[in-house]
Amino acid sequence: MPASSAAISTGDPPFATGLSVRLAARSGALDTPTSGLAYGYAQGNLAILPKDYAEDFLRFCQANPKPCPLLGVSEAGNPAIPAVGTDLDIRTDIPRYRVWRDGELIDEPHNLHSVWRDDLVSFVIGCSFSFEEALLAADVPIRHIALNRNVPMYRTSIQTQGAGRFHGPLVVSMRPMKPAQAIRAVQVTARMPAVHGAPVHLGFPEAIGIADIAKPDYGDAVPVEHGELPVFWACGVTPQAAIAAAKVPFAITHAPGYMLVTDLKNAQLAV
Amino acid sequence: MPASSAAISTGDPPFATGLSVRLAARSGALDTPTSGLAYGYAQGNLAILPKDYAEDFLRFCQANPKPCPLLGVSEAGNPAIPAVGTDLDIRTDIPRYRVWRDGELIDEPHNLHSVWRDDLVSFVIGCSFSFEEALLAADVPIRHIALNRNVPMYRTSIQTQGAGRFHGPLVVSMRPMKPAQAIRAVQVTARMPAVHGAPVHLGFPEAIGIADIAKPDYGDAVPVEHGELPVFWACGVTPQAAIAAAKVPFAITHAPGYMLVTDLKNAQLAV
Repeated sequence: MPASSAAISTGDPPFATGLSVRLAARSGALDTPTSGLAYGYAQGNLAILPKDYAEDFLRFCQANPKPCPLLGVSEAGNPAIPAVGTDLDIRTDIPRYRVWRDGELIDEPHNLHSVWRDDLVSFVIGCSFSFEEALLAADVPIRHIALNRNVPMYRTSIQTQGAGRFHGPLVVSMRPMKPAQAIRAVQVTARMPAVHGAPVHLGFPEAIGIADIAKPDYGDAVPVEHGELPVFWACGVTPQAAIAAAKVPFAITHAPGYMLVTDLKNAQLAV
Repeated sequence: MPASSAAISTGDPPFATGLSVRLAARSGALDTPTSGLAYGYAQGNLAILPKDYAEDFLRFCQANPKPCPLLGVSEAGNPAIPAVGTDLDIRTDIPRYRVWRDGELIDEPHNLHSVWRDDLVSFVIGCSFSFEEALLAADVPIRHIALNRNVPMYRTSIQTQGAGRFHGPLVVSMRPMKPAQAIRAVQVTARMPAVHGAPVHLGFPEAIGIADIAKPDYGDAVPVEHGELPVFWACGVTPQAAIAAAKVPFAITHAPGYMLVTDLKNAQLAV
């Protein structure tokens, strides 16, 4: 039955590796968020900046490793990023991009062929998907996943260390947990400094400038139940906010939820 | 000047090693609490039980490793414990002991020569001094040390896993910390499972059966300031309380604060 063999052979997941996801994005066959694809492979945030800004941004990431853990940086104009994947073309391998001019969103294309320039430097930044996989594997439940919502994120009163034209507040994500789960979560995520590492705070939102836990600045609110602590991790939205605030004349990011799926295994990101 | 040579050679601390402390206790020259002696060397809680009870107690410790982390166990009747020290005689090497009959304290001798028996088994259990040294080295302040008090300890509603005649509540010690310090403390102590390991709870005393944080069941109260979380670790008083509750006909422990100083380095207890 050759016509149906593809359908009946899907005991294997359709996207078993990072490369298979990237090739499907490259061909145009894939146009969905990447959450849940290529289980075990690390997904990353993308920021692409002109070389003139890239030098400041690299220093910004180096100075703020918890919100901006760099998994890979390209050479200017080169669409390859060998540190995170072989046969990787950053112009095509994410299903959906966002193109920004002077801090304003101007397009959401499926590839970057029409906007690519020889002075563009690509940054791949670790993502909380990696440590959430490790938390779930450690039997630590994650509220926003259980509720099928986006993680709640907040701008804080903690300032990043500025570098050149990049600066601004630390943005954090929040996951409510019972105390024993919070302790376990510190242990699990501390081992993963390449994907935000240990929490930056727990317990007192107001101590880090969060006035109302029910009103996140990004993402969706989730309830913090009686007997639970809100636990806060540094978030990859921090560098995105710094790029927006810098009003970079030209920049490219992934579209929210449409991440770069790498060849790195999450397990290999644990120290 | 031979008469004063000992006095003028004390550029070195008087008790630089665990062995030097044990030899001074053995000779009778030392009769003080051991806190602060032999910096870097692990100190341990002592419990000595008749062989008839020792088998249950060994299973109790094995089943409850967080409150009862065993550093060493002797053969019956043998005063040596090679796992924790060479040239160690458990009958003499602690400055002060407590002797118990049927759960009642009957004596506090400086050595065990008059009460030693051929059926006695010695247990050395890891002590929070080890992780407190690691916390201070990591710039995490410890309130009761700063206030020169004993650590506050509480009986909880968490039950140990019983073994034979030994059972009872988990006893915890409490250290108040700011959230970022608490996160750091989880990371530091999680690496030291041989000396109680990561905290068992933080944030909500009532959730583990502690009605009033200002009224510890053992030790001294310390203030929990605004913006601080109470952080709770499993405590070596847990097995002492289980021994007392079992009304063991004959038992020996160290006197509070007079610990066995071992040859093990605290640094070597970190995984």
